[in-house]
Amino acid sequence: MVQKSELSGLIECARQLADAAARISLSHFRTRDLATDNKAATGFDPVTIADREAERAMRQLLAALRPQDAILGEEFDAKTGTSELTWILDPIDGTRGFMSGTPTWGTLIACCTADGPLLGLIDQPHTGERFIGTPDGAYLAHRGTTTPMTAAATTDLSRAILFSTFPEIGTPLEHAAFTRVADRARLVRYGMDCYAYGLLAMGQIDLVIEAGLNAYDIAAPVAVIEAAGGIVTDWQGGPVWQGGQALAAATPELHAAALALLNAPDG
Amino acid sequence: MVQKSELSGLIECARQLADAAARISLSHFRTRDLATDNKAATGFDPVTIADREAERAMRQLLAALRPQDAILGEEFDAKTGTSELTWILDPIDGTRGFMSGTPTWGTLIACCTADGPLLGLIDQPHTGERFIGTPDGAYLAHRGTTTPMTAAATTDLSRAILFSTFPEIGTPLEHAAFTRVADRARLVRYGMDCYAYGLLAMGQIDLVIEAGLNAYDIAAPVAVIEAAGGIVTDWQGGPVWQGGQALAAATPELHAAALALLNAPDG
Repeated sequence: MVQKSELSGLIECARQLADAAARISLSHFRTRDLATDNKAATGFDPVTIADREAERAMRQLLAALRPQDAILGEEFDAKTGTSELTWILDPIDGTRGFMSGTPTWGTLIACCTADGPLLGLIDQPHTGERFIGTPDGAYLAHRGTTTPMTAAATTDLSRAILFSTFPEIGTPLEHAAFTRVADRARLVRYGMDCYAYGLLAMGQIDLVIEAGLNAYDIAAPVAVIEAAGGIVTDWQGGPVWQGGQALAAATPELHAAALALLNAPDG
Repeated sequence: MVQKSELSGLIECARQLADAAARISLSHFRTRDLATDNKAATGFDPVTIADREAERAMRQLLAALRPQDAILGEEFDAKTGTSELTWILDPIDGTRGFMSGTPTWGTLIACCTADGPLLGLIDQPHTGERFIGTPDGAYLAHRGTTTPMTAAATTDLSRAILFSTFPEIGTPLEHAAFTRVADRARLVRYGMDCYAYGLLAMGQIDLVIEAGLNAYDIAAPVAVIEAAGGIVTDWQGGPVWQGGQALAAATPELHAAALALLNAPDG
């Protein structure tokens, strides 16, 4: 069990990690001729220098501040620890957004026990917005002002705003499932990367549906959205913080309605 | 002919219009229970209170500063003028983005002669970014810093980043034409509203393709992108500042390649 006294230190550590990552990511953001390479032989999965340098900086900081904790990061091998805590890091979630200059990518930082995320942070350094989820609630830190965040009260799918990063989400079956929900929503928008999770926590949008996620894509959003009163599960209603298909909803009613449609027979 | 001496006054007027619109739009941005109504009986075309108030504020300012000029705005009737100039105003371009809390909407302001836009401004008040196109070049004003903007040098479609607001762009025929270009591009992203035009002027992305535009959606982007060295036409290669189908490209080569595909036989 993590003590209350330890918690504030963990939040402060997460903040310092985000600061370290932001210094590097911003120094590479919107530069021309950004060096990229393809991780996958097929498909488009760029990794920028910024991605690697930012994760290296966060790992160095953790080695100094929290050497006892494990680390799971996107860019380098997992590090084992001797404590009950694992830091799950994605230095630049939304590398395609980063490459395109959109302020939609973010640094994702989660501190997890074996039961899931204890706290999480979504940082968008260009806008200066930091979405933080803790056991004591969720808040947005933005240019010196900190505001509590609460998910929206929307219960009716026909009133819901739904976001997903790509319209061609997942496999054909996953796409069909997504479309069943999208067809009933008030509005469907794309292209916001992890920023969409911040918007959900803030009460601006009501649903985010994604597929093919890794733990480092979703652990921090789970912490932020659940601290704001929302619900995040996989498409079967189970835990999703370790990756897979994600359904994030502002309310239990909306979550149930979307879950039913994701699992409905097609047609 | 607009004299050089008059030009700086027009740019300053555009800035003041943007400031006036921003005060109103930001005061309504990310508030809960934003009052909206549907302009169209079918479809989804919300108009916010912010939209109307911001246009009203800009019109009041123009009545004081430039009473001789005509006004074409999204929200109210056109106003005739006695000068050769028309101000084309969209107080909140990207109302769906505005409603969703995304920093992708913008205030669009263009000052046009009968030949087209003389200068244009795309303002994103939440990020504090103002993209300005003038006969003397394009620049980005951002939190006290002004940086010249130049479109990218990309000539090869297979290296190009393409943006459009909605994947379901336009009619089925327009969608098929868009898809012919999208299938050859390096990367296709959605959901950035008018911010995408700013990214193109800045050299971050290479192509924007849209359909169904009005003059107030595209006149300012034409001014900004052309001042940055890019090209904006309709899908036939003609002027688009009065609305229609828009093709914005960083270079003549990219423009020609996309234009050919937009007009290629399907299949």
